[in-house]
Amino acid sequence: MTTIDDVARLAGVSTATVSRALRGLPTVSPATRHRVLAAAEKLQYAVSPSASRLAGGRTGTIAVVVPQITRWFFATVVEAVEKFLHESGYDLLLYNLGGREQSRQRVLRTANLHKRADAIMLVATPLFAADVSALTALDVPGVTISSGTPVPGWPCVRIDDLNTARTATRHLLDLGHRRIAHISGYPHDELAFTAHAERRRGFQAALRAAGLRPDPSLDVESQFSIAGGTRATAELLARGEPPTAIVAACDEMAMGALAALRDAGLRVPQDVSVIGIDDHDLAGVLGLSTVAQPAAEQGRLAARILLDPLGGHALAAVDGRPLTASGPAGTSNPQNPPVILPTRLVVRESTAPPRAH
Amino acid sequence: MTTIDDVARLAGVSTATVSRALRGLPTVSPATRHRVLAAAEKLQYAVSPSASRLAGGRTGTIAVVVPQITRWFFATVVEAVEKFLHESGYDLLLYNLGGREQSRQRVLRTANLHKRADAIMLVATPLFAADVSALTALDVPGVTISSGTPVPGWPCVRIDDLNTARTATRHLLDLGHRRIAHISGYPHDELAFTAHAERRRGFQAALRAAGLRPDPSLDVESQFSIAGGTRATAELLARGEPPTAIVAACDEMAMGALAALRDAGLRVPQDVSVIGIDDHDLAGVLGLSTVAQPAAEQGRLAARILLDPLGGHALAAVDGRPLTASGPAGTSNPQNPPVILPTRLVVRESTAPPRAH
Repeated sequence: MTTIDDVARLAGVSTATVSRALRGLPTVSPATRHRVLAAAEKLQYAVSPSASRLAGGRTGTIAVVVPQITRWFFATVVEAVEKFLHESGYDLLLYNLGGREQSRQRVLRTANLHKRADAIMLVATPLFAADVSALTALDVPGVTISSGTPVPGWPCVRIDDLNTARTATRHLLDLGHRRIAHISGYPHDELAFTAHAERRRGFQAALRAAGLRPDPSLDVESQFSIAGGTRATAELLARGEPPTAIVAACDEMAMGALAALRDAGLRVPQDVSVIGIDDHDLAGVLGLSTVAQPAAEQGRLAARILLDPLGGHALAAVDGRPLTASGPAGTSNPQNPPVILPTRLVVRESTAPPRAH
Repeated sequence: MTTIDDVARLAGVSTATVSRALRGLPTVSPATRHRVLAAAEKLQYAVSPSASRLAGGRTGTIAVVVPQITRWFFATVVEAVEKFLHESGYDLLLYNLGGREQSRQRVLRTANLHKRADAIMLVATPLFAADVSALTALDVPGVTISSGTPVPGWPCVRIDDLNTARTATRHLLDLGHRRIAHISGYPHDELAFTAHAERRRGFQAALRAAGLRPDPSLDVESQFSIAGGTRATAELLARGEPPTAIVAACDEMAMGALAALRDAGLRVPQDVSVIGIDDHDLAGVLGLSTVAQPAAEQGRLAARILLDPLGGHALAAVDGRPLTASGPAGTSNPQNPPVILPTRLVVRESTAPPRAH
């Protein structure tokens, strides 16, 4: 079995640095962190139950909270986390908020999680200030994945949503598109409101860098889902002259766009190009261009951080300075910058130069 | 909150009959069972924690075992089960076998589940004889969903795989197809081996009823997945003259077939018709004809059966006759016939009459 010493040796750093890198501490340079993560992945470094900092835990169980299960991102993360936890001797308690206020109350604002689990993983879970206070008061180690709300003292694994959307938009600009639409989720959708805002900022930043001004009539919000993508695209087409290209905030919205365009008699990519973000299992079948994010890797890495043998009680105290939970929900977490995994452009058949080009 | 009395009143039967119907006991006629299920669904009948027969349970937790999470069927079932359990005050421990023998040992053949959960739900989990013995020895209430191996004394919720595949095949025959291929999973694939065999039998039964003899060169096995569907279809095309239609044993294999046909320059449905089984979230986007199965409803109903307030200790004793666990894995469960939910044909753009017709 691979130990933290093996990872340290391969990465050429101390075990303490491995631990700091895996926990996303700011005292590790990006280059070193990248070397440590690559070594941990290469060696398939799994934490042994007895070495884990949760070894003294009472339950042998980790609570994983998701806002939905059936979407590609969540199912993929949960599958990867389950595998890592079980290989490390832990069980997984699954909580799906499912947009239900009752679930949010029951899961996040009671002592239920604390009684039942040694640690908590929140996957893309937007939190209200009351949730953050309740979680912090639990005094249980935790980690967050993706674009939910940061919790003070908890490490976070995610992608750079802004740059990912910028990459998608730049691909369309490079093909010669100028009339580019954006479809995304409602800003207060429980599924991913931080992602929406960041991805819109990335879309707009790419347009501005190309000398274009974002056109509000080409920006439509709907559910962050296949059906939402269909509705948003139908709404976009109802507003007048179609765009020559669409950036969807996730692949499922892009798939809904493909269906709406087909129903409207428009061909992809001849009439309208479409690009998503994710690299969903079915993106290849649909020929969908996208910017791929490593969902399973985010899950594995977050689980690894949670079980990190050298970790303290999460990051409740860094270098002897206790962290406070005073920041309102949604603020950044400067003492504990996120571990950011790279995304990459995947060009398939759904994007091409505009006809007039 | 809806009680079992409300369900009994709406269905026009006694509460004991409601309980028997929900548990799939043979003493209830199919018509009565259907009325009870419809009433329970209509009233959104959830079992209250204090009324559940598991109320004396030590853990407040149900273990749900799946062979994989990221496939449509499993994610949909788990999402529905999680919702029902949480509304009933139970937590969900998720175990994914993931094709790993180590997981199978750990989850099914140790006392782990018994220590951690008040009851067990197996979703499409094929079992070896040793697994069945170990589970029966646990003496914990259980229920199975879909086409896994029956466990003596455990209720089972499923679809009729044979008739479902027959419906898909008959649709193609009705359109005039005669050269019809079948792609399905490997017979020993952990994901669904019972489903494979039953669906193949249904495919062949439909052909024979139309006076056709199944052609082994038009029957290809691969992984029960998108990639498996692509590989099986490529193999089929490599064998010579293409079929005019393909029945895929699940929608994900059908989606893989669509990709392989496109890569081979064949148009769907002009050159080849394709039909699947499931009604996957993305079947509509892809225009895929299919036979829809109610995945979420199977999950809800199995959870309801498990928490049934009038139930005994599963069906370990029916009418005073204790059931024995003497049958080998894979045998039918005559004292405890499955609750079978209906499937229905959904015709979209991927099926049409053959060109020569």
